[in-house]
Amino acid sequence: MKKVAIGVDIGGTNTAIGVVDAEGHVMVKDNISTPSHGDIDQYISDLAAAIKELIKSVKLLNENLEVVGIGIGAPNGNYYSGTIEYAPNLSFKGVVRLVELLRAHFPEMEALALTNDANAAAIGEMIYGGAKDMKNFVMFTLGTGVGSGIVVNGDLVYGNDGFAGECGHTTLIPGGRLCGCTALGHLEAYCSAPGMKRTAFELMVQYNATDSILADKSFNELDSKMIYDAAEKGDKIALEVFEKTGAWLGQGLADTVHHLSPEAVFLFGGPTAAGDYIFKPTKKHMEKHLLPIFKDKIKILPSELKPGDAAIVGASALAWKELEK
Amino acid sequence: MKKVAIGVDIGGTNTAIGVVDAEGHVMVKDNISTPSHGDIDQYISDLAAAIKELIKSVKLLNENLEVVGIGIGAPNGNYYSGTIEYAPNLSFKGVVRLVELLRAHFPEMEALALTNDANAAAIGEMIYGGAKDMKNFVMFTLGTGVGSGIVVNGDLVYGNDGFAGECGHTTLIPGGRLCGCTALGHLEAYCSAPGMKRTAFELMVQYNATDSILADKSFNELDSKMIYDAAEKGDKIALEVFEKTGAWLGQGLADTVHHLSPEAVFLFGGPTAAGDYIFKPTKKHMEKHLLPIFKDKIKILPSELKPGDAAIVGASALAWKELEK
Repeated sequence: MKKVAIGVDIGGTNTAIGVVDAEGHVMVKDNISTPSHGDIDQYISDLAAAIKELIKSVKLLNENLEVVGIGIGAPNGNYYSGTIEYAPNLSFKGVVRLVELLRAHFPEMEALALTNDANAAAIGEMIYGGAKDMKNFVMFTLGTGVGSGIVVNGDLVYGNDGFAGECGHTTLIPGGRLCGCTALGHLEAYCSAPGMKRTAFELMVQYNATDSILADKSFNELDSKMIYDAAEKGDKIALEVFEKTGAWLGQGLADTVHHLSPEAVFLFGGPTAAGDYIFKPTKKHMEKHLLPIFKDKIKILPSELKPGDAAIVGASALAWKELEK
Repeated sequence: MKKVAIGVDIGGTNTAIGVVDAEGHVMVKDNISTPSHGDIDQYISDLAAAIKELIKSVKLLNENLEVVGIGIGAPNGNYYSGTIEYAPNLSFKGVVRLVELLRAHFPEMEALALTNDANAAAIGEMIYGGAKDMKNFVMFTLGTGVGSGIVVNGDLVYGNDGFAGECGHTTLIPGGRLCGCTALGHLEAYCSAPGMKRTAFELMVQYNATDSILADKSFNELDSKMIYDAAEKGDKIALEVFEKTGAWLGQGLADTVHHLSPEAVFLFGGPTAAGDYIFKPTKKHMEKHLLPIFKDKIKILPSELKPGDAAIVGASALAWKELEK
């Protein structure tokens, strides 16, 4: 029997599910929408059905498979309690007993565990990606929000109650932009994909930039991929969006470095596909903010996990870890 | 033979030395000036002489003592390399090989180790103070500067190169006050004892507060103790200094909580003697900045170590830990 684990990544708009082998290869994967209707029972039912369908499909390929666990990454996912609590980017309100609810659909499953989606990505990076030989690093995931996973001495930091690694919700600009969590000036409001869009419009407002490629898009149309494409064409607004995003992210990363003295910071998510456009200003501004003891020491690296797979693989790694217990 | 360890706390203006027993009691202690002349050889020579004198005096009290180690806490002290590197509040420049230099004076000493002064205080709190039963907490030391020590899963976080826990140098106000490290807007420039003095003068400037008790002191005269005394007399400027300091510290602590999800934050140092004046606004503003998942969960506690002893005791605990190896 070949043993496999299920990795589930619950994002703000999309839930990705994959069957992952013990070496971290995603054998098959699928997607369902993360709903906006807020009905957790309906969502759990849909998620369980999708997982069962995926298991069925992979067993058609190889009938000697045994599914030993489900690992889940979700915003505000709590490893200790198996709950999702007050996730600002999800429609489910309050405390959701995700592991317990999903367990009802998989009573026989050996391992079923949940953590923060960014923590899951960090575990994936540590076991299969660029952090294989690192004991101290941080993962920042840039997407609908900004998540982070912290590894100290080779272990993921959960903190006292399972919620460590919410670096996206540190204050970057006191009294600044409204964040999805309702606070002001958080890093997430500047360095997430929607944050970049907001920066693009802020700059168009500032310069009355009617000649920008981005000026023909509505506030709801514009996304970070369009900003990247415009930067490739030399659009000045788009180029300045990356410079400003890097300046903000660099300031935030410096704060994290001053807390944790990591060997490297990994960046993951859609906006990082822009490569040097985002990495160069981020590195430059992080260095500007670092104490002399940290200067020219901390690497900023792109995640080595395949886009789309990192969170799935990380979440599945959580299931493998549960089995070790 | 009763075994004892030496704890040394190198501060910006003062170096405290103590002989500490295995239970963490300071048996005798002494002080020398941390010099402003920048001559490290002279300082090491003075420090070694003071330590030897102290050992001699304690042996007069009890001749059955064996000194088994020296633990040192110093700004930018690196546990891994035994060096002090680019400490902004010390007159010694560049990288100082403190352990190696002091070792030449104590060739027989079993253990000789160095860490950050705030890390040392955190170890002291964990072993002898209010964090005895905690696995995840943070220590902030408010003094000439602002230091911090981070404990995760019962271990001090040193990070990749030994410098973790520099929370005093996170950016609180982008482009704000000049910090001792030459960067702008760091927490230390607002929440240290000199930071409080700067706030007092900022407020007197703002309100042209000629009637404040503090208005008769020069910029070099005023200290945080005088601000406390004035607050006790109802001085409006002094009271607002505490409110503003708490607002800034609360914002910074929230950032740290969002990184690490600690059970508690301990505050140590001169300004904390003001009790509710500083703790109440700090707590209020930290809560304001916390994500819902952290609200009303994180304790802000005064250090239970005796003022003056915390860093000595913590540093000595480092020596005991070395002996365990």
